[in-house]
Amino acid sequence: MTTKTNPGRFFEDFSIGEVIRHATPRTITAGDVSLYSALYGARFAVQSSDAFAKTIGYRHAPVDDLLVFHVVFGKTVPDISLNAVANLGYAVGRFLAPVYPGDTLRTVSEVIGLKENSNRKTGVVYVRSTGFNQDGVEVLDYVRWVMVHKRDPEAVIAEEHVPTLPRVVAPEALGDACPAIDLDAYDDGLAGSSDRWDDYEVGETIDHVDGMTVEEAEHMLATRLYQNTAKVHFDQLAQSGSRFGRRLIYGGHVISLARALSFNGLANAFHVAAINGGRHVAPLFAGGTVYAWSEILDKQPLPGRDDVGALRVRLVATKDKPCRDFPLKTGDEYDPAVILDLDLWVLMPR
Amino acid sequence: MTTKTNPGRFFEDFSIGEVIRHATPRTITAGDVSLYSALYGARFAVQSSDAFAKTIGYRHAPVDDLLVFHVVFGKTVPDISLNAVANLGYAVGRFLAPVYPGDTLRTVSEVIGLKENSNRKTGVVYVRSTGFNQDGVEVLDYVRWVMVHKRDPEAVIAEEHVPTLPRVVAPEALGDACPAIDLDAYDDGLAGSSDRWDDYEVGETIDHVDGMTVEEAEHMLATRLYQNTAKVHFDQLAQSGSRFGRRLIYGGHVISLARALSFNGLANAFHVAAINGGRHVAPLFAGGTVYAWSEILDKQPLPGRDDVGALRVRLVATKDKPCRDFPLKTGDEYDPAVILDLDLWVLMPR
Amino acid sequence: MTTKTNPGRFFEDFSIGEVIRHATPRTITAGDVSLYSALYGARFAVQSSDAFAKTIGYRHAPVDDLLVFHVVFGKTVPDISLNAVANLGYAVGRFLAPVYPGDTLRTVSEVIGLKENSNRKTGVVYVRSTGFNQDGVEVLDYVRWVMVHKRDPEAVIAEEHVPTLPRVVAPEALGDACPAIDLDAYDDGLAGSSDRWDDYEVGETIDHVDGMTVEEAEHMLATRLYQNTAKVHFDQLAQSGSRFGRRLIYGGHVISLARALSFNGLANAFHVAAINGGRHVAPLFAGGTVYAWSEILDKQPLPGRDDVGALRVRLVATKDKPCRDFPLKTGDEYDPAVILDLDLWVLMPR
Repeated sequence: MTTKTNPGRFFEDFSIGEVIRHATPRTITAGDVSLYSALYGARFAVQSSDAFAKTIGYRHAPVDDLLVFHVVFGKTVPDISLNAVANLGYAVGRFLAPVYPGDTLRTVSEVIGLKENSNRKTGVVYVRSTGFNQDGVEVLDYVRWVMVHKRDPEAVIAEEHVPTLPRVVAPEALGDACPAIDLDAYDDGLAGSSDRWDDYEVGETIDHVDGMTVEEAEHMLATRLYQNTAKVHFDQLAQSGSRFGRRLIYGGHVISLARALSFNGLANAFHVAAINGGRHVAPLFAGGTVYAWSEILDKQPLPGRDDVGALRVRLVATKDKPCRDFPLKTGDEYDPAVILDLDLWVLMPR
Repeated sequence: MTTKTNPGRFFEDFSIGEVIRHATPRTITAGDVSLYSALYGARFAVQSSDAFAKTIGYRHAPVDDLLVFHVVFGKTVPDISLNAVANLGYAVGRFLAPVYPGDTLRTVSEVIGLKENSNRKTGVVYVRSTGFNQDGVEVLDYVRWVMVHKRDPEAVIAEEHVPTLPRVVAPEALGDACPAIDLDAYDDGLAGSSDRWDDYEVGETIDHVDGMTVEEAEHMLATRLYQNTAKVHFDQLAQSGSRFGRRLIYGGHVISLARALSFNGLANAFHVAAINGGRHVAPLFAGGTVYAWSEILDKQPLPGRDDVGALRVRLVATKDKPCRDFPLKTGDEYDPAVILDLDLWVLMPR
Repeated sequence: MTTKTNPGRFFEDFSIGEVIRHATPRTITAGDVSLYSALYGARFAVQSSDAFAKTIGYRHAPVDDLLVFHVVFGKTVPDISLNAVANLGYAVGRFLAPVYPGDTLRTVSEVIGLKENSNRKTGVVYVRSTGFNQDGVEVLDYVRWVMVHKRDPEAVIAEEHVPTLPRVVAPEALGDACPAIDLDAYDDGLAGSSDRWDDYEVGETIDHVDGMTVEEAEHMLATRLYQNTAKVHFDQLAQSGSRFGRRLIYGGHVISLARALSFNGLANAFHVAAINGGRHVAPLFAGGTVYAWSEILDKQPLPGRDDVGALRVRLVATKDKPCRDFPLKTGDEYDPAVILDLDLWVLMPR
């Protein structure tokens, strides 16, 4: 017998202020970029073309922001959420430096909050996770909170704290991962749309029209690519005995699908600058078809920059329901088709 | 409400002589090459091995010709065939320069013909599409024609024209994408066959023997890799209400499967130099098994070259029927198993 | 009609001492590495991170040992096992040099044994296959034996011989593919475990806990990536008439799954130095869930090295049965859940 395998942490194993260095640094390569493309079919010109990216001011085509997010996130799973009940939310996610193929990412998390639930069987862990590249440069920083089982309901939690988290990243904190963009060189024809920042209005809603059906092989390929080890995505035998009886699709897979679909209507939103918040409203299973729509929640210039402006976008994904009627909520209840309610800052050329 | 999404063009939106620059330039990388390999399992030594390719005269292993075709084609979909009824045919496709990993491809199309159908609900659009690399070099040029819906049956078409297209590319127009091949360095053992150009005879037929069953995840990964956005390949919910009730597999997926299968019998046909014509005779759905056979239609030296010769090959693919009897037509009717009837020029060492 | 396709060799076509150069050299790229990652989800830091690999003494992150094995193996299929009944076993597999992205692999096999079966319909072929890189350096050497059909039961076999094969590779023959490791630079936190060579004991068993369900698309993508052409993996129509009625999953896919699962308990076993032996005990089909456990069979220092030590590991994979009870055999009979019984030398930092 051995205890060499990772049992995961339970709620009482966390303490506020604790810093966790996560395992398995990961070099992102052109191979990862191609797989990401094959999995979601994104068509943003900056990430698709070295030539386009260089023309406007990047060193090279940058790695898709959400691929960076998934890799940085994946590393936290064995230490944070192996015994999780649910991933509850995200806040203050900021993309801080571009990531290029060849960069190696690793993740460090700090426990910033703990709150036991009244049933004493579970609690909520708040962590701030930071992704670094091989030079120690921060590339991504975000907070998530997750409900985690206690090993022992009787265990006493020494210190509890619920952090106060801003609902939105301030415009002055955006843009670090976006170099100065040469607007004269930015070719709308190649980018796929002539609608730039000035053409969007607060309150505007956009149905992204297209739908994408998801297969088991696809979400598992994606989730392994991110080295995310959460069992619920991979083990059908174990899931057969679960509430759903099915493998659950990693919520990040839905985020990337919705982002890729959003090209049709937001083609020039070439960079996700921040994740203000997000909620996986309902699970997705293989065979489901994902649709998406967006609402422009806010519109802000970036202090000191006139090359790009920021749009705050509510990106909503549904399953098995097209979005021409912009399904969201009836009263406080989400429409049963809604699976993702995400709040992003995206950058667009002005 | 917004009109920022792409509604696609309808038949009356095209005009003869119109030039359309398509969106999303795409840098082809080693990652794309690996995915292409995993999707089709091709074994041509020139595309598989840098060492082999360099030995015989390439700068590097070139990107598979059909991967180039699919990427160049994919870009045309949002502008040409989003409202298409069917892709009717191809002609005069010529590969004009080798493509290497790192090259960025973009596509420009010219409308060269329009013909309204007598029902006035649809019409046929003829376009010549040209793929360019980042240096502006033409890498591929082909014509396709596609039946497109009219938005308004009453709309009047200003000018109609049906272009005259050659049934076959002339041998003197072949070979631009093939450098001078060092025949002494060409290793038949590594290439997988000792049968070279001289060993094939006009009229010869070859059953490629092997079969390949296709899964939904595979054709969708492929089609997204090519950034081809045609809805019929991806949205099962929408397709449930269609004539077939199923997602349609991109016809190019069948072309690549047939080409990969043709290695068994044509191992030295390392380069597709031209697509003389082609027809997707019937649709393929996931779960179907693809087989292929070839007939040598013609055999021509290349003017001024004694390194390689051209074989004109009719490459036929079937579904769920092995090709030992070379299924094709009974009278004017295709055998119900035939799904692809393609006419290629391939090059072989002499 | 033509005989240009490969009919494969039958048992009477082999002769002892014969050397077969296999077709299709293959350049391994970052794209292959990414796909391998997406297919199995391995998390060994050395193969995942250029930065980690360089820090400890590699030139670059090396290609996963088993990816090298599958590519070298795949090339032998068209010449050795196209008419095989079954792949019976492996012996004395040694990894002899690291493989890096950009290296081109080719394979040469020597027939070292032949033994006709008493039914005269089949025989066992023993081959030693050697993988070389583009500089002619041996990167892998292994023996396998395979049962092959005779074309003609009456054919007389000139010479028979059953080679004597060691049951285990000697410790002094290990380590050629592992550079000197800088132990001070080896970061246990990033590697995922503080258990090093000294922490493992002979006789110790480790349940690797996690399970992975396999889809048709996944094993076919993998097997094509390796350019392994064995029909049983790809052609559902032909397999419908077989004993199992299903596509068989390439046994190497199970090996890679088990190895990836073994990270949970053997995170620092960063290099497979040798395959002492192995048996595919039962077939796996899509939909099955794979689990794995290991037993430490032996533990040896490497002569002249104090950076790494070798663990001899019995790696057992099951289908649809978790391994908390370490299923293996009842008497001489394997537990019906066992599908793989593999005997490896792995290296770990001391």
